[in-house]
Amino acid sequence: MKQEKLGEEAIGEALVGLDGWTRSGDGVAIEKSYRFKSFREAFGFMTEAALAAEKFNHHPEWFNVYNRVDVRLTNHDAGGLTELDFKLAAAMDKAAALRTKS
Amino acid sequence: MKQEKLGEEAIGEALVGLDGWTRSGDGVAIEKSYRFKSFREAFGFMTEAALAAEKFNHHPEWFNVYNRVDVRLTNHDAGGLTELDFKLAAAMDKAAALRTKS
Repeated sequence: MKQEKLGEEAIGEALVGLDGWTRSGDGVAIEKSYRFKSFREAFGFMTEAALAAEKFNHHPEWFNVYNRVDVRLTNHDAGGLTELDFKLAAAMDKAAALRTKS
Repeated sequence: MKQEKLGEEAIGEALVGLDGWTRSGDGVAIEKSYRFKSFREAFGFMTEAALAAEKFNHHPEWFNVYNRVDVRLTNHDAGGLTELDFKLAAAMDKAAALRTKS
Protein backbone atom coordinates (compact mmCIF):
# COMPACT_ATOMS: atom_id res chain seq x y z
CA MET A 1 0.00 0.00 0.00
CA LYS A 2 1.57 3.26 -1.11
CA GLN A 3 1.62 5.85 1.63
CA GLU A 4 0.55 9.45 1.15
CA LYS A 5 3.39 11.95 1.26
CA LEU A 6 2.79 14.32 4.16
CA GLY A 7 2.48 18.08 3.71
CA GLU A 8 4.58 20.64 5.57
CA GLU A 9 1.99 21.28 8.25
CA ALA A 10 1.57 17.59 9.07
CA ILE A 11 5.36 17.10 9.14
CA GLY A 12 5.78 20.03 11.52
CA GLU A 13 3.12 18.65 13.85
CA ALA A 14 4.57 15.14 13.76
CA LEU A 15 8.08 16.41 14.54
CA VAL A 16 6.80 18.25 17.61
CA GLY A 17 5.56 14.92 18.95
CA LEU A 18 9.02 13.33 18.68
CA ASP A 19 12.17 13.82 20.73
CA GLY A 20 15.38 14.95 19.04
CA TRP A 21 14.54 14.18 15.44
CA THR A 22 15.48 16.80 12.86
CA ARG A 23 14.60 17.34 9.22
CA SER A 24 17.35 16.45 6.74
CA GLY A 25 18.88 19.27 4.72
CA ASP A 26 17.02 18.19 1.60
CA GLY A 27 13.73 17.98 3.52
CA VAL A 28 12.83 14.45 2.39
CA ALA A 29 13.94 12.66 5.57
CA ILE A 30 14.10 12.87 9.34
CA GLU A 31 17.30 12.03 11.21
CA LYS A 32 18.49 11.23 14.71
CA SER A 33 21.74 10.06 16.26
CA TYR A 34 21.45 7.74 19.27
CA ARG A 35 24.26 7.03 21.71
CA PHE A 36 24.23 4.09 24.10
CA LYS A 37 26.50 2.76 26.82
CA SER A 38 28.06 0.06 24.66
CA PHE A 39 27.87 -1.82 21.37
CA ARG A 40 25.69 -4.39 23.11
CA GLU A 41 23.14 -1.74 24.08
CA ALA A 42 23.33 -0.16 20.62
CA PHE A 43 22.75 -3.46 18.84
CA GLY A 44 19.98 -4.40 21.27
CA PHE A 45 18.27 -1.18 20.22
CA MET A 46 18.85 -1.99 16.54
CA THR A 47 17.36 -5.45 16.96
CA GLU A 48 14.19 -4.09 18.52
CA ALA A 49 13.99 -1.35 15.88
CA ALA A 50 14.47 -3.96 13.14
CA LEU A 51 11.47 -5.93 14.42
CA ALA A 52 9.36 -2.76 14.29
CA ALA A 53 10.67 -1.97 10.79
CA GLU A 54 9.78 -5.45 9.56
CA LYS A 55 6.31 -5.19 11.08
CA PHE A 56 5.69 -1.84 9.38
CA ASN A 57 7.39 -3.10 6.20
CA HIS A 58 9.24 0.20 6.32
CA HIS A 59 12.97 0.21 6.89
CA PRO A 60 15.56 2.67 8.14
CA GLU A 61 18.83 3.83 6.62
CA TRP A 62 21.22 3.53 9.51
CA PHE A 63 24.89 3.60 10.38
CA ASN A 64 26.41 2.05 13.48
CA VAL A 65 29.85 2.38 14.95
CA TYR A 66 30.34 1.00 18.45
CA ASN A 67 27.80 2.72 20.73
CA ARG A 68 26.43 5.16 18.13
CA VAL A 69 23.50 4.62 15.77
CA ASP A 70 22.71 7.30 13.17
CA VAL A 71 19.25 6.88 11.68
CA ARG A 72 17.66 8.42 8.59
CA LEU A 73 14.03 7.76 7.75
CA THR A 74 12.35 8.54 4.47
CA ASN A 75 9.85 6.92 2.15
CA HIS A 76 11.46 6.27 -1.23
CA ASP A 77 8.19 5.14 -2.82
CA ALA A 78 6.45 8.35 -1.82
CA GLY A 79 9.47 10.56 -2.50
CA GLY A 80 9.30 12.16 0.92
CA LEU A 81 7.99 11.70 4.45
CA THR A 82 4.90 9.66 5.25
CA GLU A 83 3.07 8.59 8.37
CA LEU A 84 5.17 5.39 8.42
CA ASP A 85 8.36 7.38 8.99
CA PHE A 86 6.90 8.93 12.10
CA LYS A 87 5.50 5.63 13.34
CA LEU A 88 8.93 4.02 12.96
CA ALA A 89 10.62 7.03 14.61
CA ALA A 90 8.29 6.72 17.61
CA ALA A 91 8.93 2.96 17.82
CA MET A 92 12.69 3.60 17.74
CA ASP A 93 12.45 6.18 20.51
CA LYS A 94 10.50 3.67 22.57
CA ALA A 95 13.15 0.99 21.95
CA ALA A 96 15.93 3.45 22.84
CA ALA A 97 14.18 4.51 26.05
CA LEU A 98 14.66 1.01 27.46
CA ARG A 99 18.41 1.05 26.86
CA THR A 100 21.34 2.44 28.83
CA LYS A 101 22.72 5.63 27.32
CA SER A 102 26.35 6.77 27.38
CA MET B 1 44.86 -6.29 24.91
CA LYS B 2 46.17 -3.95 22.25
CA GLN B 3 46.59 -5.63 18.88
CA GLU B 4 49.69 -5.30 16.71
CA LYS B 5 49.17 -3.27 13.57
CA LEU B 6 49.85 -5.50 10.57
CA GLY B 7 52.50 -4.70 7.96
CA GLU B 8 51.83 -4.47 4.24
CA GLU B 9 52.92 -8.02 3.50
CA ALA B 10 50.66 -9.52 6.17
CA ILE B 11 47.72 -7.40 5.00
CA GLY B 12 48.24 -8.51 1.40
CA GLU B 13 48.31 -12.16 2.44
CA ALA B 14 45.25 -11.81 4.65
CA LEU B 15 43.27 -10.11 1.87
CA VAL B 16 44.02 -12.97 -0.51
CA GLY B 17 42.35 -15.32 1.97
CA LEU B 18 39.11 -13.30 1.95
CA ASP B 19 36.38 -12.94 -0.66
CA GLY B 20 35.51 -9.51 -2.05
CA TRP B 21 37.08 -7.31 0.62
CA THR B 22 39.04 -4.31 -0.59
CA ARG B 23 41.41 -1.88 1.06
CA SER B 24 39.98 1.55 1.84
CA GLY B 25 41.42 4.52 -0.03
CA ASP B 26 43.33 5.67 3.05
CA GLY B 27 44.71 2.16 3.62
CA VAL B 28 43.67 1.92 7.27
CA ALA B 29 40.56 -0.21 6.74
CA ILE B 30 39.05 -3.04 4.70
CA GLU B 31 35.59 -2.72 3.19
CA LYS B 32 32.87 -4.88 1.69
CA SER B 33 29.30 -4.36 0.56
CA TYR B 34 26.91 -7.27 1.06
CA ARG B 35 23.56 -7.62 -0.66
CA PHE B 36 20.84 -10.00 0.49
CA LYS B 37 17.38 -11.00 -0.64
CA SER B 38 15.56 -8.82 1.85
CA PHE B 39 15.89 -6.66 4.96
CA ARG B 40 15.16 -9.75 7.01
CA GLU B 41 18.13 -11.60 5.52
CA ALA B 42 20.34 -8.52 5.85
CA PHE B 43 19.47 -8.03 9.50
CA GLY B 44 19.84 -11.75 10.21
CA PHE B 45 23.38 -11.42 8.87
CA MET B 46 23.98 -8.34 11.02
CA THR B 47 22.77 -10.13 14.13
CA GLU B 48 25.15 -13.03 13.59
CA ALA B 49 28.00 -10.63 12.78
CA ALA B 50 27.21 -8.63 15.94
CA LEU B 51 27.59 -11.74 18.09
CA ALA B 52 31.00 -12.38 16.51
CA ALA B 53 31.97 -8.73 17.03
CA GLU B 54 30.99 -8.86 20.69
CA LYS B 55 32.95 -12.09 21.16
CA PHE B 56 36.08 -10.57 19.59
CA ASN B 57 35.42 -7.28 21.38
CA HIS B 58 36.06 -5.70 18.00
CA HIS B 59 33.25 -3.91 16.23
CA PRO B 60 32.42 -2.93 12.68
CA GLU B 61 31.45 0.40 11.18
CA TRP B 62 28.46 -0.49 9.08
CA PHE B 63 25.62 1.04 7.14
CA ASN B 64 22.38 -0.74 6.27
CA VAL B 65 19.62 0.24 3.93
CA TYR B 66 17.03 -2.44 3.16
CA ASN B 67 18.91 -5.47 1.75
CA ARG B 68 22.36 -3.83 1.61
CA VAL B 69 25.01 -3.83 4.33
CA ASP B 70 28.21 -1.81 3.79
CA VAL B 71 30.95 -2.80 6.21
CA ARG B 72 34.22 -1.06 7.12
CA LEU B 73 36.68 -2.70 9.49
CA THR B 74 39.64 -1.00 11.12
CA ASN B 75 41.33 -0.94 14.50
CA HIS B 76 41.19 2.56 15.94
CA ASP B 77 43.42 1.68 18.91
CA ALA B 78 46.15 0.38 16.63
CA GLY B 79 45.64 3.08 13.99
CA GLY B 80 45.33 0.56 11.19
CA LEU B 81 44.55 -3.06 10.40
CA THR B 82 45.16 -5.88 12.86
CA GLU B 83 44.51 -9.60 12.96
CA LEU B 84 41.13 -8.92 14.59
CA ASP B 85 39.89 -7.12 11.48
CA PHE B 86 40.57 -10.17 9.37
CA LYS B 87 39.07 -12.53 11.94
CA LEU B 88 35.89 -10.45 12.00
CA ALA B 89 35.85 -10.23 8.19
CA ALA B 90 36.07 -14.03 7.95
CA ALA B 91 33.29 -14.44 10.52
CA MET B 92 31.11 -12.02 8.54
CA ASP B 93 31.71 -13.89 5.30
CA LYS B 94 30.72 -17.09 7.08
CA ALA B 95 27.53 -15.47 8.40
CA ALA B 96 26.73 -14.09 4.94
CA ALA B 97 27.28 -17.47 3.28
CA LEU B 98 24.28 -18.88 5.16
CA ARG B 99 21.95 -16.14 3.91
CA THR B 100 19.97 -15.71 0.72
CA LYS B 101 21.54 -13.17 -1.63
CA SER B 102 19.67 -10.86 -3.98
